[in-house]
Amino acid sequence: MNELMTNPAFHTYAVCACILAIKMLLTGNYTSVVRMRTKGFVNVEDAKAFGGTPSEQEHPAVAHALRIQRNDGENIPLFWAVGLVFVLSGASANGAWWYCWTFTIARLVHWIVYLNHLQPWRALCYGIGYACILGMAIQVIF
Amino acid sequence: MNELMTNPAFHTYAVCACILAIKMLLTGNYTSVVRMRTKGFVNVEDAKAFGGTPSEQEHPAVAHALRIQRNDGENIPLFWAVGLVFVLSGASANGAWWYCWTFTIARLVHWIVYLNHLQPWRALCYGIGYACILGMAIQVIF
Amino acid sequence: MNELMTNPAFHTYAVCACILAIKMLLTGNYTSVVRMRTKGFVNVEDAKAFGGTPSEQEHPAVAHALRIQRNDGENIPLFWAVGLVFVLSGASANGAWWYCWTFTIARLVHWIVYLNHLQPWRALCYGIGYACILGMAIQVIF
Repeated sequence: MNELMTNPAFHTYAVCACILAIKMLLTGNYTSVVRMRTKGFVNVEDAKAFGGTPSEQEHPAVAHALRIQRNDGENIPLFWAVGLVFVLSGASANGAWWYCWTFTIARLVHWIVYLNHLQPWRALCYGIGYACILGMAIQVIF
Repeated sequence: MNELMTNPAFHTYAVCACILAIKMLLTGNYTSVVRMRTKGFVNVEDAKAFGGTPSEQEHPAVAHALRIQRNDGENIPLFWAVGLVFVLSGASANGAWWYCWTFTIARLVHWIVYLNHLQPWRALCYGIGYACILGMAIQVIF
Repeated sequence: MNELMTNPAFHTYAVCACILAIKMLLTGNYTSVVRMRTKGFVNVEDAKAFGGTPSEQEHPAVAHALRIQRNDGENIPLFWAVGLVFVLSGASANGAWWYCWTFTIARLVHWIVYLNHLQPWRALCYGIGYACILGMAIQVIF
């Protein structure tokens, strides 16, 4: 395993994987904050514990926050899986650096533009992340 | 790491993990296509950017597409995690080949039958994928 | 790879990753059981195959079960990714043992308290899992 620690491709992947995980934790926090602020509780126990009336439908602002989380959940785990097999299959340090940082920065900017309701920038960031996953996956397969 | 590249169990896992990631990217594209075709926008900025009226509720066809994505999200990451520790724990090339390809083909067929609203085939494909995850997980634990 | 099998940190991670995957399979089964019991079908083909009237909205009990699954999906994949790079980056056997088992037990208890609508215990379990991910991620980055 000492070999892995000193491998620059794996090191880049490991740092980016953790940054993206922290980003997902914070995205979850954002949903909680919006839920608290709008008192948009759907679980009866939450309305009781934190004060408010439970609703069957999500509050629009909470639904927006949940869509940000869902979008992360549909993209970041793909990076964790494909990025890992990419670096474990002997990717060059340079190739890993470009793929991992491009994906990570695209997802961080995606978050900012989604929070601010900015199109077509959100679609662009999504596309860049998509291209990174696809590029790495194709290189592993062939 | 050169050891990993030449390990047939790891190689099978890596190829299947990437095929499943590409499948998830395409499933996401399908949702986008359905959303565009039905003009089923829930984000105000999307309705503005692509033309249409934003709705609070997902269009039924979009909701169906999102359920396909959600089902992937509830199953494929389990394969990425359990499959990886299975092959890294010294699985035989043969065992890995059967588990990984059975799971991958079951999920690809699951997609086709879900798109075509076919039951009980969808439940069957789900069950085959489920059995693969459970089998590998139990072998790793014991 | 024999090196990995005998590494106690990796072994702890592998067992916990598989326990959490089995937990997610069972959480999915719970949703199916609730859906069958309430006849809460949203797919037309399911209502036809299993008897019942399809509905556009999820039944409240099914929606509750789906929120449990969604919460898992927002937390457990983070453990799979961050936990793996943590142990592959040369974590001590002791550090891995505490992080992995604390996270795993917190998520199992989270499940029980969510099923039983218990607050603030659910928030507490969520927070413990959150702290484990954050702690490992920060250690990998620095």
